[in-house]
Amino acid sequence: MSAGPFARLPPPPYYVVIFSSLRTAGDQGYEQMAARMVELAAQQPGFLGAESARGADGFGITVSYWRSEEDIAAWRRHAEHRLAQQGGRARWYEHYELRVARVERAWGKAI
Amino acid sequence: MSAGPFARLPPPPYYVVIFSSLRTAGDQGYEQMAARMVELAAQQPGFLGAESARGADGFGITVSYWRSEEDIAAWRRHAEHRLAQQGGRARWYEHYELRVARVERAWGKAI
Repeated sequence: MSAGPFARLPPPPYYVVIFSSLRTAGDQGYEQMAARMVELAAQQPGFLGAESARGADGFGITVSYWRSEEDIAAWRRHAEHRLAQQGGRARWYEHYELRVARVERAWGKAI
Repeated sequence: MSAGPFARLPPPPYYVVIFSSLRTAGDQGYEQMAARMVELAAQQPGFLGAESARGADGFGITVSYWRSEEDIAAWRRHAEHRLAQQGGRARWYEHYELRVARVERAWGKAI
């Protein structure tokens, strides 16, 4: 899973959660929670990989890849993840959008 | 399309192109091309919206949303976009990954 920031994934089909978010000001425990969620997600059944970018304006996109929709649903219900979701709504995000999609084709290029 | 950095989208289903990339050093005309591609994509049939984030490490994710796979294929073949793709391979990106997925569910939250 570590080609630097890129996820190493099997051939499609698989599923993706696209999480777009705008951070509130100040850390308020955000970095620690985010690192823990990456660590925890990677331990879940069906987790395939994740990629994340956030600009200086506070807008970020995280994509996490999963074997199935059931695996995504189980991760969404995970107790520690639910606590983080509550913190996200209460403190860390001004606004966010979540989209679940089925990846059908993939290709890439390394120099 | 402007709730700040968030795309305003219709209810699913629709399609998404997830473009993850690691920039080379230096601008080399990149910012001008990127702004032009955003402008040009927004004029294409079936374009629904886009979101983009890039961190200080040069790793970025752009998601663009489309009505259909045919619309995505047409945009991929667009002459000016093809020139940009060539520049991307030759100059602007160390590495990139492209994934096309069908969005099936979406939800969000604004404070």
